[in-house]
Amino acid sequence: MLELTPLLNPERDEPLYAQLYTYVREEIREQRLVPGRRLPSQRSLARHLGVSRNTVDAAYQQLLAEGYVHSEARRGLFVAELPDDLPPSGRRIQEKDSPHGSVQAFGTLPEQNRRAAPTCDFRYGDIDTDHFPFKAWRTLAARSLSAENAHLLLYGEARGEMDLRKQIAKYVYQARGVSCRPEQIVVGAGTPYLLDLLRRLIGDGGRYAMEDPGYLRARRVLEESGRSVLSIPLDEHGIRVDRLAAAGANTVYVTPSHQFPLGMIMPAARRLELIQWARERGGTILEDDYDSEFRYEGRPVPSLHSLDPYGNTVYMGTFSKSWMPSARVGYIVLPEKLLPAYRQYEDLFKQTVPRIEQHTLGLFMESGEWERHLNQMRQLYKKRYTALHEAIGREWGDSVRVVGSAAGLHVVLELGGALAGLSEQDAIDAAKRRGVIVYGGSVFRHDPVEKTPVRLLLGFAGLSETKIEQGISLLGQAWRDPER
Amino acid sequence: MLELTPLLNPERDEPLYAQLYTYVREEIREQRLVPGRRLPSQRSLARHLGVSRNTVDAAYQQLLAEGYVHSEARRGLFVAELPDDLPPSGRRIQEKDSPHGSVQAFGTLPEQNRRAAPTCDFRYGDIDTDHFPFKAWRTLAARSLSAENAHLLLYGEARGEMDLRKQIAKYVYQARGVSCRPEQIVVGAGTPYLLDLLRRLIGDGGRYAMEDPGYLRARRVLEESGRSVLSIPLDEHGIRVDRLAAAGANTVYVTPSHQFPLGMIMPAARRLELIQWARERGGTILEDDYDSEFRYEGRPVPSLHSLDPYGNTVYMGTFSKSWMPSARVGYIVLPEKLLPAYRQYEDLFKQTVPRIEQHTLGLFMESGEWERHLNQMRQLYKKRYTALHEAIGREWGDSVRVVGSAAGLHVVLELGGALAGLSEQDAIDAAKRRGVIVYGGSVFRHDPVEKTPVRLLLGFAGLSETKIEQGISLLGQAWRDPER
Repeated sequence: MLELTPLLNPERDEPLYAQLYTYVREEIREQRLVPGRRLPSQRSLARHLGVSRNTVDAAYQQLLAEGYVHSEARRGLFVAELPDDLPPSGRRIQEKDSPHGSVQAFGTLPEQNRRAAPTCDFRYGDIDTDHFPFKAWRTLAARSLSAENAHLLLYGEARGEMDLRKQIAKYVYQARGVSCRPEQIVVGAGTPYLLDLLRRLIGDGGRYAMEDPGYLRARRVLEESGRSVLSIPLDEHGIRVDRLAAAGANTVYVTPSHQFPLGMIMPAARRLELIQWARERGGTILEDDYDSEFRYEGRPVPSLHSLDPYGNTVYMGTFSKSWMPSARVGYIVLPEKLLPAYRQYEDLFKQTVPRIEQHTLGLFMESGEWERHLNQMRQLYKKRYTALHEAIGREWGDSVRVVGSAAGLHVVLELGGALAGLSEQDAIDAAKRRGVIVYGGSVFRHDPVEKTPVRLLLGFAGLSETKIEQGISLLGQAWRDPER
Repeated sequence: MLELTPLLNPERDEPLYAQLYTYVREEIREQRLVPGRRLPSQRSLARHLGVSRNTVDAAYQQLLAEGYVHSEARRGLFVAELPDDLPPSGRRIQEKDSPHGSVQAFGTLPEQNRRAAPTCDFRYGDIDTDHFPFKAWRTLAARSLSAENAHLLLYGEARGEMDLRKQIAKYVYQARGVSCRPEQIVVGAGTPYLLDLLRRLIGDGGRYAMEDPGYLRARRVLEESGRSVLSIPLDEHGIRVDRLAAAGANTVYVTPSHQFPLGMIMPAARRLELIQWARERGGTILEDDYDSEFRYEGRPVPSLHSLDPYGNTVYMGTFSKSWMPSARVGYIVLPEKLLPAYRQYEDLFKQTVPRIEQHTLGLFMESGEWERHLNQMRQLYKKRYTALHEAIGREWGDSVRVVGSAAGLHVVLELGGALAGLSEQDAIDAAKRRGVIVYGGSVFRHDPVEKTPVRLLLGFAGLSETKIEQGISLLGQAWRDPER
C-alpha cells in the first residue's frame, strides 16, 4: 500500500523533507504516481519511513504549494493533473512558499533537482557546521541575555559595540598587521552593506575599478553610484597596476590575500605598487580580506593596509568564513581621511548588527574561544583542501590545473589536456547528471576575453574528506563520459 | 585620603562608570582635584565605593582618553594640566575611545554633561527594559543554538527565514489587516536599510515626497537618489493630499498610524484620498507603521495597506518598539508590482538579520510569548502615557498643549500661554540645567515656516511613572525660571 519508499539519507547536505519532496515530485512527474492517486497520510508515511511527521508535513506542503498534489477536505492529498508546460522545478521552489531557508539554493540552480538531489554540492560560501562550538556560544549568549545587560536592548553606538571593536582591533593587528584605533572600526551587516556605506563616504568623486574576474556583488554595489566600474585584468600576481593607472580610476576594490575567484596571493611588490598608485593618484584602495584566516602553506603576506603608510587603504574583514556566514557580521577599518565623511553618515544608518550578538561575539573573542575555534577550523580545512587537491591530481593528472594558492575555502579548476574540448556549461551539466554541483567561473568575468580556458569553482569547506573524494570521483566519471 | 566620594546611583539610566567619570571630571574641571594630584588606585577606589573594579577602570580609561588624567608607569594616574580651550566634553566622548556603547547618547547632546549627568532623559527610541522576557528568550535562543539547527549557520533566504515571515504575515493580517503572502515580506536590519532597498526597487523614476515635519532618517535615505525629497505640509489629519498632488511626486513616505513626530492619526477619509492619489498618479505609498502596536484610546484605524485595493502601498513594520531597538529587525511587505524589481536585487544584498536571531524570533512569536509581552508593554506604556499626560496638565494647565493622539512612545508638547516667549533652545537649555533632557521639534522640519509655536519631543517608554512625574516637575521649575 505504501508505495513511497525513497532512500532518505540524513548524511546528505539536503534536509530530509527536501529529499522526500524531490522523490515524490519525481514519482509524479514520471507518472509512477498517477493523477488522482491518494498519498499516504502523514502519520503512516512518517512511521513507514522512520522520520518525524514534521518532515513529511514540510514535503507535502511543498508539493501542495507547487501544485503537484491537491487537498480534499477530510480525505487527504491527491496527485494532481500536471500541465504540459511545467516550468523547471528549481525556480518554482524559490518563488513559492518554501518551508525552509535551506531550499533557497535550489533557486540559484534551476536545473539541479530535475533528476535527483545532488550527492555532492561544491557550494562556495558554506562552512563546516559539525565543529561549531554551540555549547560555548550558548553559554556566552545566555550571559549576554540577562537583566544585568538590559542596556543592550537599547540602541548602541552606530559603529558597533566598543567591546567588540576592541577585540577586532586586537585581532587585525596581531593577525594582519592592521594598526588602528577601535573608533576607526565600523561593524555592519555584511560586506555588501559595508561596501555600500563606503561608496557613500567616498561620494560622487569616486571612479571605481576592480579585478576582472572579481567579486560580482562588489561590482553591483559600486555600480549603484550610477557609473560603470572599470574592469582591470589580472596577471599571476593579481590586479595589473599598470592597467589600473591607465584606466583613470581613483578607487579600486581588491582581494589581495586570496583573489576572488582565482585565488592568487598578491606578492608584496605588487602591493607596494598599488599603494604607490593610490598615493600618486590621491586614490583609495578597498582591501577585502574576506578569507585571510585560512592559509595552508607558506608565510602570510601582510595586509595591504599594514604596508600603506599614507592612509589610503580601507581594510575590510568578515566573520562569515571564520565564524558563520548567517551571522552577518563584517567590519571595515576606516583610514583617517574617511572619518570626517563617516561622521556625517553616522546618524543616517544605525548599527545594523544586533547589539546582543555583538556583545556575545566580543565575549567569544575575549575568552579565547574564537581563536581556538579558528585554529581547529584551519586544521580541518587544510585537510579538506589537501584531500581535494590530491583527489584532483589522482583523477586528472595534468588535464586539470588548480589555479591559485593554498588558501581560502575554494579552489578553481582549469580544464586542459583531454578535457580541453569541454565547454563550461557541458562540464557543469555533465556533473549535475552525476549529482555533483560545480560552479562556472565565467560568471565572475565582466569583460569578455577572446580565448580563455574553462574554469570551475569548487568550495570545499562544508564537505568531509570522504565526500570530497566521492565528489571528485563522480566528476571524473562525468567528464570522461559527458554525454551520459 | 580617598577624597573621591561621588553619589553613585545604580537606579539611574546612566551606567555607574559614567556617573563616576562625570563626577571625577567635574572635580578636575572645577579644580577641586588639582593638577598633579594622584588618583586612588582602582582597587582601593572600587572597595571604597563598593563598585566593581571594572567600573572604576572604565571611568579611568575615559578620563585618560580625554586627557583629564595621565598615567605614569608603576605610579598610577595623575590629574593633568587642563588647556584653557577645552571643547565641550560631550562631543569628545564620542570621538574618543569610549568604553561602553551607552555613552554614545552624550555625543548627540554635547552640553548635557557639563554640569551633571541628567536626572531624567526623555529620549525617544528607548523602551522599557525592566519587563523584557529575558528568561523566555534565553530558552528559545538556546533551542535555536543547537547542533540540530546547524543549517542556521549557513546562508539563508535573502528575504529572511520563512518561519519568521509566516509569523509576520499572520501578525500583520490579524493586527493591521495587511493581507499578504510570506514571499511578499522582506526582513532587514532596520527601517533605513529597508527604505534604501525600496529606493533601489523604485529606481530612477522615483520622485519622492514626505511629511514635513517628518522622519529625518527617511528623508536622508531617500535623498540618496540624488534628487531632493519634496516636503508636504500637514494639517490636523496628517499629510495634505491636495498639496501632494500639486507637488508632482509619484512616491510618498507617510506615517499614518501615528505621524512622526507630531502624532496625529490619519483618519480613514484621508487614507482613501491618498490611495486615490496613488492610483491616479500611478504612484506608490510607503506606509511606515513604526509604532502602531501602541494605541491607548479609541478604535484602531486599519492600515493604509489594508484599504488599498490597487496594490500601490508598501507596508513597513519594525520590532524596534514592540521587542527591542537593538535587535535591528524590520520588515516590508512588497506589493506585487515591486516583486519583479525585488527579484533583481535579491542576489545583491544577502539577508542582513542573523538567521539564528530570526529563527528565535519566529519561535518567540509562534509560542505566543511575543503577544503576551506586547500586551504587557501596552498596559505599561499606557500607564506611563497617562502619568505623563496628567503631570503635564497639573504642571502647566493651558500653557502647554499635548499635540497628537494617545498612541506611540512619545508625546509632543506645544508651548503657549505663559511659556509662549520661550525659544526652543532656551527651553532645552533651561531643562538641561535641571538635569532634564528634552528634544526640540524644529529639527524634524525641513521647510522653514514663518511662525510656529515651540514644540518639544518627549519619549516616555524608558521611564517609570515616578521618573516621569519628577521630570515634568523639574521641567516646570526650569521653565518658570529659565535663567537659573
